Amino acid sequence: MSATTNTTSADGVAGPGGPGGRPPVTVLGLGQMGAAIAGALLAAGHPVTVWNRTPGKAAPLVEQGAVLAGSVAEAVAASPLVLSVVLDYPALYGILDPEPDALKGRALVNLTTGTPEQAGEAAEWAARHGVDYLDGAIMTTPPGVGTREVMFLYSGDRAVFDAHHAALDVLGEPLHLGTEPGLAALYDVNLLGLMWATMAGWLHGTAVVGAEGTRAVDFTEVAIRWLGTVNNFIRRYAAQVDEGVYPGDDATVDVQIAVVEHQLHAAEARGVDNRLPELLKTLMLEANAKGHGQDSFGSVVEVLRKGARR
Amino acid sequence: MSATTNTTSADGVAGPGGPGGRPPVTVLGLGQMGAAIAGALLAAGHPVTVWNRTPGKAAPLVEQGAVLAGSVAEAVAASPLVLSVVLDYPALYGILDPEPDALKGRALVNLTTGTPEQAGEAAEWAARHGVDYLDGAIMTTPPGVGTREVMFLYSGDRAVFDAHHAALDVLGEPLHLGTEPGLAALYDVNLLGLMWATMAGWLHGTAVVGAEGTRAVDFTEVAIRWLGTVNNFIRRYAAQVDEGVYPGDDATVDVQIAVVEHQLHAAEARGVDNRLPELLKTLMLEANAKGHGQDSFGSVVEVLRKGARR
Repeated sequence: MSATTNTTSADGVAGPGGPGGRPPVTVLGLGQMGAAIAGALLAAGHPVTVWNRTPGKAAPLVEQGAVLAGSVAEAVAASPLVLSVVLDYPALYGILDPEPDALKGRALVNLTTGTPEQAGEAAEWAARHGVDYLDGAIMTTPPGVGTREVMFLYSGDRAVFDAHHAALDVLGEPLHLGTEPGLAALYDVNLLGLMWATMAGWLHGTAVVGAEGTRAVDFTEVAIRWLGTVNNFIRRYAAQVDEGVYPGDDATVDVQIAVVEHQLHAAEARGVDNRLPELLKTLMLEANAKGHGQDSFGSVVEVLRKGARR
Repeated sequence: MSATTNTTSADGVAGPGGPGGRPPVTVLGLGQMGAAIAGALLAAGHPVTVWNRTPGKAAPLVEQGAVLAGSVAEAVAASPLVLSVVLDYPALYGILDPEPDALKGRALVNLTTGTPEQAGEAAEWAARHGVDYLDGAIMTTPPGVGTREVMFLYSGDRAVFDAHHAALDVLGEPLHLGTEPGLAALYDVNLLGLMWATMAGWLHGTAVVGAEGTRAVDFTEVAIRWLGTVNNFIRRYAAQVDEGVYPGDDATVDVQIAVVEHQLHAAEARGVDNRLPELLKTLMLEANAKGHGQDSFGSVVEVLRKGARR
């Protein structure tokens, strides 16, 4: 499989990927997500070298022009930029530890899902081995990879982000959150938490109106339109959270406590589980008890910050 | 939309507010919301008659050209279209019951906040008194009234909606949900429920990343960008809810149960209250227990539908 370097240099002489063309990229891990990433890079004209524990998964990509490397060392040697998209951190170290020097002087962009602490440890591993490290989080399912609609979040070495921006840009809109390596993972889990909360609230409403015969797709179009308005509230309250002052001139916590009763009643009457709105009401009541009854919903953050940290 | 064309062509005949121009509208109730509505109608060139229990509130609107009626009967007589924007249903009947025939043959668009049942009762009241009735819900705070960004939801008599579309269109994008009068109120409380869930999820994440020094406004721009992606998931899952089949080919409940542990850990380590993500995890675990572990998050609707209904 020395074809890896051959192909790259051959590509370098002719078409895209040549000198002044798209730079070569190596992708480690060809699960659904890794395969989608390699496919998007190929489609954009990057020479792509792939490696997977079970090489059979590479076949469709090889058909599209990818080079299948015979070893991790060979895969890594093929490109200045290496993307790891493996299952978890044990899998990542299982690949990298046997050949700790193979990545030396190259850039590792680690898209493995994990905790902020794991990202920090991986950054330390990279520093010990002379590897430029950027951590990343993929904010889409595999079908969204390669579209402008989706975001890829990065944190860590800004120079890696800048040097390889063109390749990262192929995958989705790349955002660099800061130099702390764990930030992308921290945003990731919290954005997923926002997603679950939003989806659960949406499913609750869907169940209630569904009991009246309204189709989920009909409620959902209105709900999505409404979430655009909610974005405006969120923007306003974000500034309030940063100020620590929550003027309730648009809608107070107390007014919303009154309205949530209507919601609970409507759901109860239609046999829908009310644990979610009950909890939201409890949080609002606690905000009221902390003196925020005439403040905006933004003040609920004071209830959530139970610890000493402001 | 024929009413739109009619009004538009009439608009072409004479100036705004003149005979054949924008039709007159009466607004009952001049709280913050009623005043914003009357102001938007005036700004759009409608002759506006207003009435309020305490007439002093009308002064700024009279300066802008509104006519202050001396009684409810006088206010209602001035326009074929009457918008009621009073505090609650007792306040509404307190106004209408003393002069039950004043509205006969006119259209009442009731924007009072309440339950679907209260909307249904008001529709019955209107039918008994020969009044054309449309129920409405205002999906914005007062500053949003009169902008295209916001929605006003309506349900009930479609003919009222069509005949007065041009005036309703001034307030925000008007959507007619169906002929059942309670639908707008039912959507209203459930969209607010979606808002609270979304905002609580967002505040939770804001608190967690805030513990690392990230400003709320910075996290929020990424969160809003992400909610655009979440909309795509919601659209896909809406179709699944209508089908009652939840293929988890993009992301399964079980995968998300694994990731929620990362979220809980990150928040716990930063002193943030975890009741919301704990509940969301519980809902996912219950979906798993019902056999939906390999299905999408859309299957959580089966947990929420605790009653006998489908």
